[in-house]
Amino acid sequence: MSAFAERLDQACLTTKSLLCVGLDVDPACMPAPDVLQFNRAIVNATSDLACAYKPNLAFYEALGLPGLEALARTVEYIHTYAPHAVIIGDGKRGDIGPSAQAYAKAMFHVWGFDAITINAWGGQDTVSPFLEDPSRGVFIWCRGSNPGSADLQDLALEEGLHGTQHRVPVYQRLASLAQRWNSQGNLGLVVGATVPAQLAAVRRLCPDMPLLIPGVGAQGGDLEEAVRLGVDVHGRGAIINASRSIIYASKGPDFPAAARLEASRIRDAIAKCLEAEGKGWP
Amino acid sequence: MSAFAERLDQACLTTKSLLCVGLDVDPACMPAPDVLQFNRAIVNATSDLACAYKPNLAFYEALGLPGLEALARTVEYIHTYAPHAVIIGDGKRGDIGPSAQAYAKAMFHVWGFDAITINAWGGQDTVSPFLEDPSRGVFIWCRGSNPGSADLQDLALEEGLHGTQHRVPVYQRLASLAQRWNSQGNLGLVVGATVPAQLAAVRRLCPDMPLLIPGVGAQGGDLEEAVRLGVDVHGRGAIINASRSIIYASKGPDFPAAARLEASRIRDAIAKCLEAEGKGWP
Repeated sequence: MSAFAERLDQACLTTKSLLCVGLDVDPACMPAPDVLQFNRAIVNATSDLACAYKPNLAFYEALGLPGLEALARTVEYIHTYAPHAVIIGDGKRGDIGPSAQAYAKAMFHVWGFDAITINAWGGQDTVSPFLEDPSRGVFIWCRGSNPGSADLQDLALEEGLHGTQHRVPVYQRLASLAQRWNSQGNLGLVVGATVPAQLAAVRRLCPDMPLLIPGVGAQGGDLEEAVRLGVDVHGRGAIINASRSIIYASKGPDFPAAARLEASRIRDAIAKCLEAEGKGWP
Repeated sequence: MSAFAERLDQACLTTKSLLCVGLDVDPACMPAPDVLQFNRAIVNATSDLACAYKPNLAFYEALGLPGLEALARTVEYIHTYAPHAVIIGDGKRGDIGPSAQAYAKAMFHVWGFDAITINAWGGQDTVSPFLEDPSRGVFIWCRGSNPGSADLQDLALEEGLHGTQHRVPVYQRLASLAQRWNSQGNLGLVVGATVPAQLAAVRRLCPDMPLLIPGVGAQGGDLEEAVRLGVDVHGRGAIINASRSIIYASKGPDFPAAARLEASRIRDAIAKCLEAEGKGWP
């Protein structure tokens, strides 16, 4: 088990939760005027319910340098006040050699994320610079939760020798490649909760990898199905992300309590699914 | 012709150049202690020779908030002192709907780039938010210059009906999709100079799209071939990028003069290729 896998396991056990809270800050929806203040309130309200937090960098970049400064201080805050939680920098970065090295440095050492999402379009030599430190996790965006993800990810490849040919979608080939690239044990995959058949296929191909599963909540993915199909044989190794449905559960000043209520509801529903499978928390 | 295509055309005509200078800042190589000072010196030394500048965001993010501040001021500087030049933000961003919108806002409105590179792994609905303003250019990373790009981009798809089947690599399917997605005329593709066969194939599939071609210089791509295969029928529509070979041409205090010399050499070689094809500058 890699240091990252242990860290993630411990975060889940501590909170008895597979829930990741997505910190997709948007001034048009936020009931607080200030990004850092908003994030602090959400973290304070949910820290015992979430194994992970996932700021999506797009929303911070859209706010310019002050947004990025708020991101830096949010990461510090979580490290200090919810030290069990894994912080996933959702940036879907990907570029060739020296650029990938620079992104790895930025994500792990400048921002201080415990784990990140990346884009593997550039292949193995664009993925490996991110994997060097086994205490940091890396999730390749494998099968998206959006309709357009079918455009490239579901294209069918011919596989097998003469007479035994069958068709395999590109995202499954990527999952198989990722298995091979995972020499440090710190690689995982992102698969949407909105595409349960694809989620099941990835879990079959990668029985031990952690899966980051967005798409429950505002995007409409089925939570029970995501848990049942996403976890490994031990009922772990799946991180179920909800963003807007939690952080914007209320647009009034009661937003921390409303976020807590929704996070609690999702955490309990996950626990119930795990129990039904005989894989509940100890 | 889109407003972006006209802007790019004008930039090339003004400088009689297809050269883009990549501003991949790296304190370990930079002969100046300060990123902004270094970039200013490079821009001052090359502004009459380059139709475009391309900062790769990875290198600025690796320097933290001060790096990003230097990026913001570099963009301002180029807009002011080399107003003809197209500034390409090389960030290879890509994410689903609301996140893609946030990235588009960040790249075009916060950073103020004239054009950007993106990653189309998420399909059309992740690309279209970037295309809304026809005065801004968007280059999809189609076929990389690195060896690993073969891992996913060169996988073979079956195409055609029974009896007329042939195999098409994924990057070519992406190029064909991009043709279809290009409703505003502001979409282009990134194809490496190190893979001339793939460059030729993309130009065949997308005769009118601008191509951003990295990989000459330090990566060893053949310049003459890149120009000959990359340009459109008019001998335009190709942006030939060189980064390290220009900006780190000297590691001493004469680096601006050395950068100018190398940029000039590449620009002249491009002009010679175009002339040989009967498509020289007016």
